[in-house]
Amino acid sequence: MLIVQKYGGTSVANIERIKKVAERVIKYKKEGHDLVVVVSAMAGETDRLINLAKEITPNPPLRELDLLVSTGEQVTSALLAITLQSMGFDSVAFLGYQIPIYTTNLFTKAKIKEIKVDKIKKELNQGKIVVVAGFQGVTEEGDITTLGRGGSDTTAVALAAALKADLCEIYTDVEGVYTADPRVVSNARKLKKISYEEMLEMASSGAKVLEMRSVELAMIYKVNLVVKSSFTEAEGTLITEEDEEMEKVLVSGITYSRNEARISIYGVPDKPGIAAQIFSPIGEKGIIVDMIIQTVHPDNKADITFTVPRTDYSQALEIVKEVAKKLKAERVEGDDKIAKVSIVGAGMRTHSGVATKMFETLAKHGINIMMISTSEIKISCVIDEKYTELAVRALHEAFQLDQENIKEEKTFIKRPKKTK
Amino acid sequence: MLIVQKYGGTSVANIERIKKVAERVIKYKKEGHDLVVVVSAMAGETDRLINLAKEITPNPPLRELDLLVSTGEQVTSALLAITLQSMGFDSVAFLGYQIPIYTTNLFTKAKIKEIKVDKIKKELNQGKIVVVAGFQGVTEEGDITTLGRGGSDTTAVALAAALKADLCEIYTDVEGVYTADPRVVSNARKLKKISYEEMLEMASSGAKVLEMRSVELAMIYKVNLVVKSSFTEAEGTLITEEDEEMEKVLVSGITYSRNEARISIYGVPDKPGIAAQIFSPIGEKGIIVDMIIQTVHPDNKADITFTVPRTDYSQALEIVKEVAKKLKAERVEGDDKIAKVSIVGAGMRTHSGVATKMFETLAKHGINIMMISTSEIKISCVIDEKYTELAVRALHEAFQLDQENIKEEKTFIKRPKKTK
Repeated sequence: MLIVQKYGGTSVANIERIKKVAERVIKYKKEGHDLVVVVSAMAGETDRLINLAKEITPNPPLRELDLLVSTGEQVTSALLAITLQSMGFDSVAFLGYQIPIYTTNLFTKAKIKEIKVDKIKKELNQGKIVVVAGFQGVTEEGDITTLGRGGSDTTAVALAAALKADLCEIYTDVEGVYTADPRVVSNARKLKKISYEEMLEMASSGAKVLEMRSVELAMIYKVNLVVKSSFTEAEGTLITEEDEEMEKVLVSGITYSRNEARISIYGVPDKPGIAAQIFSPIGEKGIIVDMIIQTVHPDNKADITFTVPRTDYSQALEIVKEVAKKLKAERVEGDDKIAKVSIVGAGMRTHSGVATKMFETLAKHGINIMMISTSEIKISCVIDEKYTELAVRALHEAFQLDQENIKEEKTFIKRPKKTK
Repeated sequence: MLIVQKYGGTSVANIERIKKVAERVIKYKKEGHDLVVVVSAMAGETDRLINLAKEITPNPPLRELDLLVSTGEQVTSALLAITLQSMGFDSVAFLGYQIPIYTTNLFTKAKIKEIKVDKIKKELNQGKIVVVAGFQGVTEEGDITTLGRGGSDTTAVALAAALKADLCEIYTDVEGVYTADPRVVSNARKLKKISYEEMLEMASSGAKVLEMRSVELAMIYKVNLVVKSSFTEAEGTLITEEDEEMEKVLVSGITYSRNEARISIYGVPDKPGIAAQIFSPIGEKGIIVDMIIQTVHPDNKADITFTVPRTDYSQALEIVKEVAKKLKAERVEGDDKIAKVSIVGAGMRTHSGVATKMFETLAKHGINIMMISTSEIKISCVIDEKYTELAVRALHEAFQLDQENIKEEKTFIKRPKKTK
């Protein structure tokens, strides 16, 4: 098999840990696999470099910032290749520009455009273990770029796609994807398998194990992605295409996010174009609106409630107050002490009654639902922040997520599968 | 003017100092000069990186070692460009591979083969200050190399040559080239000007201010080289082609080296091929022999004395003892407590009496001369190590090097100048 492995910052935090990584890589090599190993910067190194730049100026020029920060992964890739060679295994380290991994020239958050795999294939054919510095690429002009948050995961998935690898393993400090955050739900269960769509919904609704971008990339190129721990031998979670078995699982996981805030504007005239007048100035400031609910009253007035990232809350509130004056709205209210709790499961497509069960469960615990939004395989409720843990635990129990049972409910109806 | 400036590790040791460097660069820029600035790694960083590799294995693979170590200069170049931009001066940082600076593939001690200057010229024409990571280059295959000891000086001189710069300034932690080590001779005088040949002889005989390689390069390409301090505004020393004025200076400087050891082999049969039998096995071990003296006795036996680097002393002594047995030599003696004291001056070519004055001065202070070697512009004496400082001070005084007088001695004879 051709396996792409990616090791995060905590897995390569010091020489001792890099040796452990090398031992693991060698174990796979000895089993006869071809290996491409993507590494992050040693834990803390990226922050150290960014802080050096910030010591000079709060807004360092982005081209030079990328030149600076990309050294973190360069150091780790060299150290891992040195370690592998010192253990008797032929290895070669490559930087983004050497492969090359071509990206757009949007420094600090570049997108991969093309990966040339000839160089890597040549080294693999010679029996070498190929180590690649993650997070970095190069523009056509030869400038070094970085890929933004979760960039090394993206490097690994993109390489796996370009090389048509059999497997892409993301090694991190957790053992996989859980039915809920194990710090909140003590009997949260590690999932053996989850679909790309479910993982995407979980990532977008608060699960931190993977960035959405690398999951999207894996989904597009059908890369079999495994999340596992570099500190244990546990099996990890496979993220792959949805299959029959997954569809039978009603709910795969519960996620939560405390990164949002709610803004409500009451009593605006219910005329066409009102929403645009409210959301255009917010969008212009680069603030992303997540959920929107509009209620129309008999008196032709409407209430609009929406959520924004908590970090943008005060700015968004200012803007809305301005707009409210112009629109002669009755009043504006805001709340940044909210949480979003979501349930995600591919089985929702073919099962009914999931939403009802969620609402009933929250109600039973006296938790008021402020807003609801749904997708095909997700239901999210906005609640008072103080009930977050209670809600997650109650839902985890209600859907019996600590057990691996596949639900075959009475209401099961097989619907034709959608092509996406 | 087009000026290439190079700042060493202590000059860029932290953000505060990098800001000072930026201020100096900007001062020149404001005077209307075009600037290319070469930087070393922050003081201590190269050692930190090498130690990481040595923590893994005492003999790290050299390709990956270069990949690792070259990040030091990459970080500094990015930080300086960020600083210049934060001060309002357009700037761009380039790595070796981006220019590119092509080198041989002899990792850790690569030699520059070719520098493409188009990219730098283009940026200079746009009014930008160009910052270049020193010490590094790239092979034609795209592998990162480093240039060995004094590598950033070499980068600066090579860039100055390729760009046909008017001046190449090497900023360091001393104010220039002195008539003798100021730590030994309190009234040592800073030289305003010195010829390439003199500087080469001084570097080869113990002066540490510049590596021989960058002086050689400057000499070949006639690069006007200035050594000066980045911590003061003092003028520095210009290293340039020999002129009439320099020829009139009898002695420019006194140097010393304690890095050598002496080995003597007594009573070997004086037959052809003897020297080869002694020096071949030493050369095979990569040990460099500096001075050699052979004395022939009436009984057809010879004594041979030579010097080797002190670090190779015990190994060389073992080899010579082996050879001595085969040759039936009378005995072998060694001494690693020696020093080499040298006087250097372009004026020696046209003046006589310099050697005599040196020997008399040493004799007057009771210092025994063990070995003598001379070149056109240098005389070196090997003496007992304990007399090092005394010898340097005595010679400095005897040749009145604390004074800037140009000697017009009675014995002055103008000889035709040699073409080299």
